[in-house]
Amino acid sequence: MKFEHVLVQMKDRMPEKRYIHTKGVAMTAVHLAKKYGEDIDKAELAGILHDSVKYAEKEWLREKIISEKMDPNLLQYHHELWHAPVGSYVAEHEFQIHDEDILNAIKYHTTGRAGMSPLEKIIYISDMIEPSRNYPGVELLREKAEIDLEDAMVSCMVHSMTFLIDKKQPVFPDSFHCYNDLIQKKGKVNE
Amino acid sequence: MKFEHVLVQMKDRMPEKRYIHTKGVAMTAVHLAKKYGEDIDKAELAGILHDSVKYAEKEWLREKIISEKMDPNLLQYHHELWHAPVGSYVAEHEFQIHDEDILNAIKYHTTGRAGMSPLEKIIYISDMIEPSRNYPGVELLREKAEIDLEDAMVSCMVHSMTFLIDKKQPVFPDSFHCYNDLIQKKGKVNE
Repeated sequence: MKFEHVLVQMKDRMPEKRYIHTKGVAMTAVHLAKKYGEDIDKAELAGILHDSVKYAEKEWLREKIISEKMDPNLLQYHHELWHAPVGSYVAEHEFQIHDEDILNAIKYHTTGRAGMSPLEKIIYISDMIEPSRNYPGVELLREKAEIDLEDAMVSCMVHSMTFLIDKKQPVFPDSFHCYNDLIQKKGKVNE
Repeated sequence: MKFEHVLVQMKDRMPEKRYIHTKGVAMTAVHLAKKYGEDIDKAELAGILHDSVKYAEKEWLREKIISEKMDPNLLQYHHELWHAPVGSYVAEHEFQIHDEDILNAIKYHTTGRAGMSPLEKIIYISDMIEPSRNYPGVELLREKAEIDLEDAMVSCMVHSMTFLIDKKQPVFPDSFHCYNDLIQKKGKVNE
């Protein structure tokens, strides 16, 4: 990996299992970037950094959301969502990443959003299908990712939304807007 | 039925099957209103009138949405949604219903919304479970409606959202807000 020196810095930030996941996301993202003609370096860096604060203290994440004036709505939803926007902040201020697309790919890797870039979709999908992921339906998502990025993104969002709704969990508005945006664009393509 | 004279006016507006459905919604709504201590007359009227323009011309519905300055966002979504707000308008202007709760119960019977009143929930649920409805899962929804109005409403919304997402159909924002509102209130009750 080109950014192995950044990857190894993740070791102290997360348990072994999450480190394996991180490496898997970076490798999957590079693979998808090659396949779909996106920037390979950006994909690798976003993959490596996407979960950098996944194991940060909940209160520290909350303070960052407030002090850095991130979407205050986040605080009304499960703290599981907080590591993504704060991870983007850390990527910028600690790892000196200033590429907007990489920062957004980290920021929206958990919720998605309307109008995602190809890189954002690659990171979202890679997070769901990297080799160490193991849940019912993951194989089908992997197959779709090999065929069509848009279609894979729709299927990943459908999977995520269904997962939350089946468990009667709240859905963050960005995810809902992401879903409708993808479905409505897909509808227009098919018309 | 107390408002049989209003019910019979629905006969010319819809096919026989929908008329049977309409009667079923009114009767189910009366039953649930009795059970949960809500106004029986309002429930019957809202049930009778909820689908009054279900078979109106699509273009006429579109014009009403525009001329009466209803939510313009509706026009970006499936026309199946349009009969609810226009039906509320017709209830007011043609059937001289001026009770805000009845009008809202008709207006939101297809999408739901955040902050639904008990009557609105009763109509939403009745529309999904009245005796002529027949789809996988309807029996469970009927059972829930006999036990707890809130819980039945959550289950009906989960069913509706899952149905749309499984078919990769857009979800109208009111439905999404309704879902999150119900789930978040339920979470607070359970805390």
